[in-house]
Order: sequence, then C-alpha cells, then structure tokens
Amino acid sequence: MLTLVIYDITDDELRNKVADFLKLKGLKRIQKSAFLGDLTYSERVNLEAGIRHLIKDAKANVQIYPLTPASYSQRIVIGVELSYEDEEYLV
Amino acid sequence: MLTLVIYDITDDELRNKVADFLKLKGLKRIQKSAFLGDLTYSERVNLEAGIRHLIKDAKANVQIYPLTPASYSQRIVIGVELSYEDEEYLV
Repeated sequence: MLTLVIYDITDDELRNKVADFLKLKGLKRIQKSAFLGDLTYSERVNLEAGIRHLIKDAKANVQIYPLTPASYSQRIVIGVELSYEDEEYLV
Repeated sequence: MLTLVIYDITDDELRNKVADFLKLKGLKRIQKSAFLGDLTYSERVNLEAGIRHLIKDAKANVQIYPLTPASYSQRIVIGVELSYEDEEYLV
C-alpha cells in the first residue's frame, strides 16, 4: 500500500536517523520532511515499529498515512522540485 | 473532502504567509509544515489557486493530497504533539 510519512523532529541527529531509516526501508523522499513508498502490510508494521524505536521519548511527531492510488494520482504539486540530498550534506 | 497539505518553503516570510493562508481557509496545523482540512471541491480549487498565487516562482514545493476517510482513520501518529503556534511566534 502507498504510504506517506511526514515528520517534525527537533533534534538534527535523530531527524537524519529517521530519514536514513525511511530510505533504507525503500521510501522515497518527496520533501525535506516527507517520504513516500509502496509497502506491504508487514513492511508498514515493521516501519512503524522501527520509527517508534528511534523516536522513543524525543520531541518528535511522525505521522504515517496509507494512501489510495486515487489519492496519489489526484495529488497536486505546486512549485519546484527541491534538492533534498544536497540539503542533507549541509546538516 | 479531507485534504492534506505539506510544504517545503525556504523563505521564512513566504512560509508564514502560506501557513496563515491555510489557517484562513480553515485548515488545521498538524505539523510544522503540514495542514489538514475538510474542504469542498470548490474550496480545494480555490486553495490551490491561492497557493499558486503566493508561491509564484519561489523556491518552494507544496503538495496537496485528497484523503479518504479510511486513510485518515488508519493514520498512525507517533510521538508527542508539538506546539506549533509557539514556534510561529519565534520566527
């Protein structure tokens, strides 16, 4: 299932860890703090567990949304594609 | 329809303008760079036009996703509820 993950994480190191974890799980960065991927049910359960393990009691908020194909195809993208990989190296 | 708006906007002033616009349109902040609201079709068209007008050629990326009620009810929220209003006053 299509899965959108958006996050707000105050600590730089933890934020990068979560981003690396999401990449490792095959999700693709669509914004600085948003990833999207097509996961099986068990992959999504695994993803949630991994994020909970990383976040623990940190000042962080992560939200995971299952998306229907229609929701994805009807999405509207405004503006330019920002280069997120570059920004990561700056951190 | 439930509508999720996520954004990546480099310029502080423009980012605040977009956040204010989304609030004005009745969306609720769910993360620092994410808003959610229940809009009619025409409200969503209007929202899109307003965002395009604000963004113009700025270094920004805004994505609007229509969500089904099932997508919303199945969302997973991990972590704490951060205080976004406070952060705005800090900018």
